[in-house]
Amino acid sequence: MTEIISSSQNSRVKYLNKLYRSRTRRKEGVFVLEGKRLIEAALAGGADFLEVFLTPAFFKAAENKDLISNLKKCSEVILIEKKLLEKTASTVNPQGIIAVVNEALFKGGEFFSAADKILLLDRIQDPGNMGTMIRTAAGAGFDGIIALKGSVDIYNQKVIRATMGAIFSIPIWQKLSKEDFLKEIKNSTINYELAAADLDAENYYFEHEYSSKLILMIGNEANGLDKELLEKADSRIKIPLSGDIESLNAAQAAAVIAFEISAQAIKSIS
Amino acid sequence: MTEIISSSQNSRVKYLNKLYRSRTRRKEGVFVLEGKRLIEAALAGGADFLEVFLTPAFFKAAENKDLISNLKKCSEVILIEKKLLEKTASTVNPQGIIAVVNEALFKGGEFFSAADKILLLDRIQDPGNMGTMIRTAAGAGFDGIIALKGSVDIYNQKVIRATMGAIFSIPIWQKLSKEDFLKEIKNSTINYELAAADLDAENYYFEHEYSSKLILMIGNEANGLDKELLEKADSRIKIPLSGDIESLNAAQAAAVIAFEISAQAIKSIS
Repeated sequence: MTEIISSSQNSRVKYLNKLYRSRTRRKEGVFVLEGKRLIEAALAGGADFLEVFLTPAFFKAAENKDLISNLKKCSEVILIEKKLLEKTASTVNPQGIIAVVNEALFKGGEFFSAADKILLLDRIQDPGNMGTMIRTAAGAGFDGIIALKGSVDIYNQKVIRATMGAIFSIPIWQKLSKEDFLKEIKNSTINYELAAADLDAENYYFEHEYSSKLILMIGNEANGLDKELLEKADSRIKIPLSGDIESLNAAQAAAVIAFEISAQAIKSIS
Repeated sequence: MTEIISSSQNSRVKYLNKLYRSRTRRKEGVFVLEGKRLIEAALAGGADFLEVFLTPAFFKAAENKDLISNLKKCSEVILIEKKLLEKTASTVNPQGIIAVVNEALFKGGEFFSAADKILLLDRIQDPGNMGTMIRTAAGAGFDGIIALKGSVDIYNQKVIRATMGAIFSIPIWQKLSKEDFLKEIKNSTINYELAAADLDAENYYFEHEYSSKLILMIGNEANGLDKELLEKADSRIKIPLSGDIESLNAAQAAAVIAFEISAQAIKSIS
């Protein structure tokens, strides 16, 4: 590992660059992580590392010794010039380290058997919203996320950063179509309550008693939840709004309801 | 109003351009709004308009007739070439209209006498977080926001957009120093409960009974609440977090607690 890549024409660098396009990423089934903190979180979360690119300065720094030794156990570690790494990265300061990680794929029975409380996201567009909802769902004790087709790619750099590492803490099934989701639910042996966040619901979110097997459905920022999903819902709930405020940001609404569900579960135990 | 400004050297255009710098904005005591939706919200919220810049196409469109007639009653309305308007604006698509509005200044006794529930924001950095918290606080029935010195300017374009018009629905006192805030509270005739969101609190946010006169304090994204504010708090509350999630995004935490406070108030009435 004495060689330090310095040319943008190097085949590994060219490959890494291509992974910043979502189409290539999907085809390869991998995603890219930038910065020490995220990569530590990925390691702790048991992510499957393929390649790690480091600057010589990052490699030499005493405080990175443990991380590098752990990464070497599960991944190829490649040295690359600082300028080249920064040119490739999407963040202004990738902190000297970029990793390529296999997508964690969760599907079908395997996904449902491990998930009691699922957050379903219907065509969420904003990467910050998507990332923060992943973080919040994991924090509220949800154990699965379904991001329906039409939502922003969860492996988008902005999404990953907004999760603050939580993307490794919760199984996520993305790019599932609405039709396939409804089939999966119909065929599942688990009888989930489908709860829809809906501005026109009759009941307030805190008046409703949520089932222990639950799928909370949150809709698109501008248009709310898909009509068919709304029709299939077992329960509809709304958040009471004051004054002339017509709606909340989707991620804010998700947080309010997810933590009410969490609070009900905690109260029922104690 | 037959003249259409076409030169970037026009004195009004030069002035408008300068208002995109936060220092000039503060000095002049004004801020800038872009787009029809925000400007309608400002009009409904009783904002004090100074100047409105319109493209000829916006001016001619039948669907804008009412808005323009209302704006003419309270402001100067100026025509400007589309190219020039778009060059000036911070958004890619300002939708043909930019307005200059007087800052709504709320201070001291006037502010407190009208506010039962206040959200205090301590050094919030992210404009999206700031804007979404303003929207959420208004939606949860809070009637005042204090953004302490060190927080992002509430008249930053990204903040204004994230409020989705809510910036006109709730009195906001910004650039107040911590020291002055503590003095104001000490001297106030209103006995507010100071409630602090704190990861190290003993009580869960849903176990606590909030006073009807309340200041909910939310801290900086990375470092949480200032130590002195934490010490002065009457109550400290935390949100229970699952798994390895160490904290929530500041705006998510604010939403969860603000709506618990709102829910308690609704339940106590019904």
